[in-house]
Amino acid sequence: MSKSPEEEHPRTAFGWAARDKSGHLSPFHFSRRETGEEDVRFKVLYCGICHSDLHSVKNEWGFTIYPIVPGHEIVGEVTEVGIKVKKVKVGDKVGVGCMVGACQACENCNNDLENYCRKMILTYSSKYHDGTVTYGGYSDTMIANERYIVRFPENMPLDAGAPLLCAGITVYSPLKHFGLAEPGKHVGIVGLGGLGHVAVKFAKALGAKVTVISTSPKKKSEALEHLGADSFLVSRDQDQMMSAMGTMDGILDTVSAVHPVLPLLGLLKYHGKLVLVGLPDKPLEFPVFALTMGRRTVAGSSFGGMKETQEMIDFAAKHSITAEIEVVAMKDVNTAMERLAKNDVRYRFVIDIGNTIASTKL
Amino acid sequence: MSKSPEEEHPRTAFGWAARDKSGHLSPFHFSRRETGEEDVRFKVLYCGICHSDLHSVKNEWGFTIYPIVPGHEIVGEVTEVGIKVKKVKVGDKVGVGCMVGACQACENCNNDLENYCRKMILTYSSKYHDGTVTYGGYSDTMIANERYIVRFPENMPLDAGAPLLCAGITVYSPLKHFGLAEPGKHVGIVGLGGLGHVAVKFAKALGAKVTVISTSPKKKSEALEHLGADSFLVSRDQDQMMSAMGTMDGILDTVSAVHPVLPLLGLLKYHGKLVLVGLPDKPLEFPVFALTMGRRTVAGSSFGGMKETQEMIDFAAKHSITAEIEVVAMKDVNTAMERLAKNDVRYRFVIDIGNTIASTKL
Repeated sequence: MSKSPEEEHPRTAFGWAARDKSGHLSPFHFSRRETGEEDVRFKVLYCGICHSDLHSVKNEWGFTIYPIVPGHEIVGEVTEVGIKVKKVKVGDKVGVGCMVGACQACENCNNDLENYCRKMILTYSSKYHDGTVTYGGYSDTMIANERYIVRFPENMPLDAGAPLLCAGITVYSPLKHFGLAEPGKHVGIVGLGGLGHVAVKFAKALGAKVTVISTSPKKKSEALEHLGADSFLVSRDQDQMMSAMGTMDGILDTVSAVHPVLPLLGLLKYHGKLVLVGLPDKPLEFPVFALTMGRRTVAGSSFGGMKETQEMIDFAAKHSITAEIEVVAMKDVNTAMERLAKNDVRYRFVIDIGNTIASTKL
Repeated sequence: MSKSPEEEHPRTAFGWAARDKSGHLSPFHFSRRETGEEDVRFKVLYCGICHSDLHSVKNEWGFTIYPIVPGHEIVGEVTEVGIKVKKVKVGDKVGVGCMVGACQACENCNNDLENYCRKMILTYSSKYHDGTVTYGGYSDTMIANERYIVRFPENMPLDAGAPLLCAGITVYSPLKHFGLAEPGKHVGIVGLGGLGHVAVKFAKALGAKVTVISTSPKKKSEALEHLGADSFLVSRDQDQMMSAMGTMDGILDTVSAVHPVLPLLGLLKYHGKLVLVGLPDKPLEFPVFALTMGRRTVAGSSFGGMKETQEMIDFAAKHSITAEIEVVAMKDVNTAMERLAKNDVRYRFVIDIGNTIASTKL
């Protein structure tokens, strides 16, 4: 018989977990493994609240293992390192993103694309190599093999930098891989939420002309004046959309809801690329003529490998890119989740774990 | 008032045209322009019957101009050349494919991608530079600017080579551009019709491992023994499809009917590409998870530029690639169209224009 979450490992841990698809989070005592030779253990200071956390606590994708401790935008300070660890030392600021393991032997792992390893282990609600369930960053401590540890640059704020570990790499990787954001190129960013707002910053820093495409006219001044986009299109305004037809080299679509794709394909130049990083739970409809007539491409992308994640955070530090955040206390996480479900956040909640989790212990 | 088709140009021409969306073809007297400085005039010897001809005579895509003389797989012998023509001389064997004009000034034209020029002029049922309607190869003579003339290699049979001018380039271009068919790569070809059967031949000649994916188990021996494919999958056989999951670098999908895409995406390796060259008249549904989880790509492609079309026909001649054809007389074109609508052809009808059109003149 398998042991309880509290007994299966030698080291005690405390976090907040959802027990069922209500998604309601509450205090949770569990345990974490001993620090292995290649492991880095750290005290969690901040953890971002990603939209995936919301999907997962409610089991909306169908593969949640309860109890679930969510959180995969985790930042903290190293407290212990295994004897073989070279990447960091005690006291360093580090982060863990969406994954904590992979096979490390397949073609994808060998090409620094652990995120596409078919045995990739997610940071929470996934089975680790030893068969135990992984628990995420809504918790006081975290541990991971050093391969999955990101070094946080000196000048990167821990709270506003945390969301880059998921939202940042998820937009940076396709912008780079598909060549969407290069000097001389015009890229569209669809959706100005947690992913979209950092996509604008990365695309500008990478040298592209950036147009934000949003259903909400209210976001125009924010996009142009605060985030630095070059132009703004209201996707429901047919005149605006028509006037921008065929002007974009690429589009990064961060929208998680089902939405029409034809107008976006129309914005692309011939040979242009539409890259999807949102995860609608139903299929999208693609008019084939719009693809064939202009040799257009639609692709998907899912966060990024560890080498590229480190590259992304170093690039962000160099260009002073951070997420726009609202810091919340651990005890207020359920309220934050409810607001997130209504898109009532600009643009990412980050939990101040370091200062507020201890007082929630039973 | 615009002149009649028979009077608008100085040179008489005779072909078969459809007058309305019944698609029924019958003898048609019209005219063609004088041979200009850069023009090549030729006596049509053979013309393939493409599935697009069938769509067009019935106006199924909605942009047919009646009367329509279809045919864009046209081969013949040069009878006149303009004084500036350098590419060919009288007596040469030449071909014309899907287009007879483009702006020749835009980025696509400058990159030998005239097929993606927004002012590209189709070989039939399109408006030429002078505003007159273009008429295709179901006719006794043809004329085109030399840029749109393909030199037919000595050893390429005119009848079995004709379909390469559309079917051939439509599969060759994406196989090359998207890197689907290279030594060491495994490519799937969906649909074993006019396009699919030459795609198998090109993909093999380009050095790839080739798997044919078809709804019809009857085509297995044909695919393996006659066309040289390495393996065969029945798309409706779930066990077969499961066993091939994640094994293909790319898939070329030649199917024109609406069909499920998810099983095809499942056949792709991570980072694999599905390229659509068929033209279903309704949108296809794409499950986004299947794209994002494996950074997979879906793209479209539409025939090819003139430089690549010449490259394709030279490559085909070198590797003895031709279409599998059934030659029909001009008077039997309506019967051939009806059989094509029922997919009752292996794999392409070609009209013997040179020997059979004269006797149909009224």
